Amino acid sequence: MITKSQIQFVQSLKQKKYRDLHRCFVAEGSKLVLELAESRFSVRQIFATTDWLRDTHFATGIAVEEVKPFEMERISALSNPSPVLAIVEMQEEAPEPTSRFEDLTLVLDGIQDPGNMGTIIRIADWFGIREVICSTDSVDLYNSKVIQATMGSITRVKVNYVELAGFFEALEVGVPVYGMMLEGENLYTAEPTPNGMIVIGSEAHGISHKLTGYITHRLTIPFYPADRDYHAESLNAAVATGIVCAEFRKRLAISD
Amino acid sequence: MITKSQIQFVQSLKQKKYRDLHRCFVAEGSKLVLELAESRFSVRQIFATTDWLRDTHFATGIAVEEVKPFEMERISALSNPSPVLAIVEMQEEAPEPTSRFEDLTLVLDGIQDPGNMGTIIRIADWFGIREVICSTDSVDLYNSKVIQATMGSITRVKVNYVELAGFFEALEVGVPVYGMMLEGENLYTAEPTPNGMIVIGSEAHGISHKLTGYITHRLTIPFYPADRDYHAESLNAAVATGIVCAEFRKRLAISD
Repeated sequence: MITKSQIQFVQSLKQKKYRDLHRCFVAEGSKLVLELAESRFSVRQIFATTDWLRDTHFATGIAVEEVKPFEMERISALSNPSPVLAIVEMQEEAPEPTSRFEDLTLVLDGIQDPGNMGTIIRIADWFGIREVICSTDSVDLYNSKVIQATMGSITRVKVNYVELAGFFEALEVGVPVYGMMLEGENLYTAEPTPNGMIVIGSEAHGISHKLTGYITHRLTIPFYPADRDYHAESLNAAVATGIVCAEFRKRLAISD
Repeated sequence: MITKSQIQFVQSLKQKKYRDLHRCFVAEGSKLVLELAESRFSVRQIFATTDWLRDTHFATGIAVEEVKPFEMERISALSNPSPVLAIVEMQEEAPEPTSRFEDLTLVLDGIQDPGNMGTIIRIADWFGIREVICSTDSVDLYNSKVIQATMGSITRVKVNYVELAGFFEALEVGVPVYGMMLEGENLYTAEPTPNGMIVIGSEAHGISHKLTGYITHRLTIPFYPADRDYHAESLNAAVATGIVCAEFRKRLAISD
């Protein structure tokens, strides 16, 4: 039986100010909750149905509240509530200075759509990119739609929010900074490196003007055929991220 | 001034049964509405603010209703309503038998997420793929989230719903059918062709069992590094579509 104050608490976490106040966020779904429970994250509490609790083994030491499906509907943000919802503690991410200079890092400049943010974290995970750096005006990592869209990749990719101009100022000289733009060098004729920053701009405005001076290589994904007059103005930010990461990693794999 | 029955009519179009009944759908946003008005689609009615109507030129012959911003909030499906919303007539799409055999075609097997569907249509547009064929259990093209996510590409890409097993049965012998799978030939060592079907499975279940017999080439997007134990289980369906389309078109562009 879930109490009224528990319902209010879970619902309050839909808002960033309450997530920041309580230093925790919501994750739903069996696979995601179990991955979080086995990761560097701490699961504070689990709300789950009788059936799920009977059938599932998970780490001890987590407070468990048995709930009825109709109660789950009252706390879930999903249109089809899953049998389990967890309250998870936020993680203070230590920066990854090594990967910043020796490996690829994704830099997100103002990504607003939670689905795009979560999908980009999942892309980073697939392509072995260990850190994603976001501008402070990007959507909050702990937004429940971001968490759900990561499909568990949040447990394997570190995400930090920084003021990007200062970040680029402090970046070691010689680290390539690739900017995905609508005009630039053809991605497929450029020479990708095993390290560097790949900067993805916001859905509506691309890479912000104040950052373009830090871009050392402007890259573009060519449309097809090249002589076409009318085509989509751009690709979705997460799709563009997938294509550029695939291309960089492919060449690295081939040269291994 | 918008009437109560107009509000009810626009709101009813959130449901597929009313879209099918009235043979029309909703599109919001200045760029999208103007692209539709100049395309093969017929815009039946526009609801727009005074400012938008004063500042915008568009095709004559469209019924126009001037509305206040607070009225727009009552009919809009967006959290930030745009100054214009259009009622657009559905289009009966003629099949593209030529492109089916001479060009690339995307085949979607049960895509459920409206954002993925719209994003995939936008990808098709970017890479010059003229037709997308969907299984009958895929999300409805005219769902407003699909329409918004196409970002106007709906005007340049034809989308048809068919029973896929019958479609593949009738397919000319020799047309390659590429299936994006978690296990298959490495996309980057496979030999892409200028024509063929690229089949994308549903978010939760991949390509359905009853269709795998029609796949002539199983392709996979390799994760990185290849010896990693833990990584995302899969890529988002739209991201995978973007990566495979980019790869096929890139090689075609290089060999042109």
